[in-house]
Amino acid sequence: MEESSTQRLMDSLLDHKQEVNLAATKEKNAALAAAADALLASKDEILKANELDLEQAKGTISDVMLDRLRLTDERLTGMANGIRALIDLPDPVGRVLDKHVADNGLVIEKKSVPFGLLGMIYESRPNVTSDVAALAIKSGNAALLRSGKEAFNSANAIMTALKQGLEKSTISPKTIELVQDTTRKSSSEMMTARGKIDLLIPRGGKGLIRAVVDNATVPVIETGTGICHIYVNKAANLDEAVRITANAKMSRPSVCNAAEVCLVDKEVAADFLPKLAEAFAGKVEMRADERAKEYLPDAKLAGPADFDTEFLDYIMAIKVVDGLEVAIKHIAKHSTHHSEAIITEDQAAADRFTQAVDSAAVYVNASTRFTDGGEFGLGCEIGISTQKMHARGPMGLNELNTYKYIIHGDGQIRE
Amino acid sequence: MEESSTQRLMDSLLDHKQEVNLAATKEKNAALAAAADALLASKDEILKANELDLEQAKGTISDVMLDRLRLTDERLTGMANGIRALIDLPDPVGRVLDKHVADNGLVIEKKSVPFGLLGMIYESRPNVTSDVAALAIKSGNAALLRSGKEAFNSANAIMTALKQGLEKSTISPKTIELVQDTTRKSSSEMMTARGKIDLLIPRGGKGLIRAVVDNATVPVIETGTGICHIYVNKAANLDEAVRITANAKMSRPSVCNAAEVCLVDKEVAADFLPKLAEAFAGKVEMRADERAKEYLPDAKLAGPADFDTEFLDYIMAIKVVDGLEVAIKHIAKHSTHHSEAIITEDQAAADRFTQAVDSAAVYVNASTRFTDGGEFGLGCEIGISTQKMHARGPMGLNELNTYKYIIHGDGQIRE
Repeated sequence: MEESSTQRLMDSLLDHKQEVNLAATKEKNAALAAAADALLASKDEILKANELDLEQAKGTISDVMLDRLRLTDERLTGMANGIRALIDLPDPVGRVLDKHVADNGLVIEKKSVPFGLLGMIYESRPNVTSDVAALAIKSGNAALLRSGKEAFNSANAIMTALKQGLEKSTISPKTIELVQDTTRKSSSEMMTARGKIDLLIPRGGKGLIRAVVDNATVPVIETGTGICHIYVNKAANLDEAVRITANAKMSRPSVCNAAEVCLVDKEVAADFLPKLAEAFAGKVEMRADERAKEYLPDAKLAGPADFDTEFLDYIMAIKVVDGLEVAIKHIAKHSTHHSEAIITEDQAAADRFTQAVDSAAVYVNASTRFTDGGEFGLGCEIGISTQKMHARGPMGLNELNTYKYIIHGDGQIRE
Repeated sequence: MEESSTQRLMDSLLDHKQEVNLAATKEKNAALAAAADALLASKDEILKANELDLEQAKGTISDVMLDRLRLTDERLTGMANGIRALIDLPDPVGRVLDKHVADNGLVIEKKSVPFGLLGMIYESRPNVTSDVAALAIKSGNAALLRSGKEAFNSANAIMTALKQGLEKSTISPKTIELVQDTTRKSSSEMMTARGKIDLLIPRGGKGLIRAVVDNATVPVIETGTGICHIYVNKAANLDEAVRITANAKMSRPSVCNAAEVCLVDKEVAADFLPKLAEAFAGKVEMRADERAKEYLPDAKLAGPADFDTEFLDYIMAIKVVDGLEVAIKHIAKHSTHHSEAIITEDQAAADRFTQAVDSAAVYVNASTRFTDGGEFGLGCEIGISTQKMHARGPMGLNELNTYKYIIHGDGQIRE
């Protein structure tokens, strides 16, 4: 059977991956600078390719999606700056994570190393192509990227530019590749490339992530879906609670760290909910359970599905609860384990909440919107993991490394 | 549809897991001591159940497997001591892995926490039941164990004893459970228990591990298979090379860190191979490629499959290579990424080997047999990971934890 174009790319990446896996920091930084320059130098080609994508997509995808797909001078400059920002970050490769000398004299060192070959399957944001390629290079990984069909021409033009940049560096352009086949076959080939792809990261909507998690036999990091909760405890400062809930919901509803559900203790519901309604007035649709609706005459009555939905929109589900333990149980049942917050002035309640809530990021008196690599001091972000294995929460450069043990002896054998 | 017995156990574990997830170190240690005592107090019942397993297995499994299945007074004492050994190890839960204060005053802490609910699917060694239950308790995890059918009665008697021990502690016996259904259905239910089982670890033969990795939709750690290589570089001390190769092959051939393949540089093959044959004489079957056979008249000629086989036996595949780079390429193609060693007095060759070989443990001038949790200073071991995600090489208590971010604010919102 003839090899597919995707299989051929993977084989070529395996042949060349060590050229980036073993590269020195200086080489990788020079390659990033060259890639950023090349991206801007190819501006015309990239914008033309993007025009083609937009043309073909018109009428088939929503306006929001069209806007995500659109590249501009400004966005391209942002992409180049994103690549350059990685140059100043510390190299994640070669950190000594542990070192000890055993009684028999063996020197056992645990050292961070790149995974080897990363796979990334994503949707229609063209900037992901340059972001991920740059993160891969800085973290010492080769990368195989698969863009959504809608953005393929843009992604291909971007990848061509980045490779032209690498040509001018000591890192081989054959260490980053874009899948050329945009049918399902190529995703499936990536998901089952055991022994070739060391880590596969899906980025996009719930459907995409679910499909990858369910079908992949290569190691996968589940990212992104956020049904985030704000719990207003009876001991909350209610003005602060309103300010935080409004920010968590309204500052950018389309992202995964935006809050979707507000739980409020029955003792303060009568005070809090009308204030929240005022802050939301005309901007956020409130879907209230029966008890909450008593204080929110204008709200819709929530259906049960509303407490299990990532709206990504100006909609919030609202529920009155009988105290901290009920809130914790509700979150355990309905959360996607991304980010949750308690608003309270009661230290014991805060401690119990942060201990018992099993999510990547648990907040006391702050907005869930802070869950990202930049805000957490990682400098960058390849995604937000909602699983517990390997990485949890925002993933930066360190999370794109694994480790190995290097053991030096002078003839030790085991009895 | 009625819930299966396995589903019911999982639901019950989810209801009770926080009783161990949030337990204090003192509580967990007291529970371990009580479990060890109870194991010895139930000696008669456990040995009787084991008799039954041995009776039923006779004639259907090999003598080696029968021996693995057999419990004795001595082995039970060993199991109890294994549990007690965990008491003195540091608690992996609650380590502050990172902490920083952001410019806006948010205090962002990254803290180790248990996974929640571990799943373990294993085969016929009854001691795994007590080992894993104890590791789960110490690492703060609830656990659902599925023993192989052959060892079920023994495993069940051991689990009953451990639970009797927990009854006398503050940790609920409902935090550890043994699957009662030994058909394939229960494995399959565990492999697809998304949102319930946080980490699934298969332990056993290649077939079992492969089936779990291929079919699981819950996060899995791939363990165990070891096609380990010894590479005798032209600059090796040949006497040391013989000693190390003999140890790596013969000290315990049935374990995953035993060497299966020896590669030797052509320059030293004529000197080294006859010496190795002498060390192996009458004990190890040598399967030599054509070039190696020139120096090993009594060896069998190796078939191509011999370089891709985990013999777990007194057999070694032997190949003459044209130098370091060829050896590195051979290992990249044929290794299971477990443990490999170079024997050399040439520092540059050693450095190149440890950099380029992509395995969990890479040795210079020492036996591959050292790859285990005890030898690496982890104090214990739940398995040896051959994947790169989350944990690589020996997994101890820390590797049975994940982390979460706990963020304290005083009203911060995101612009």
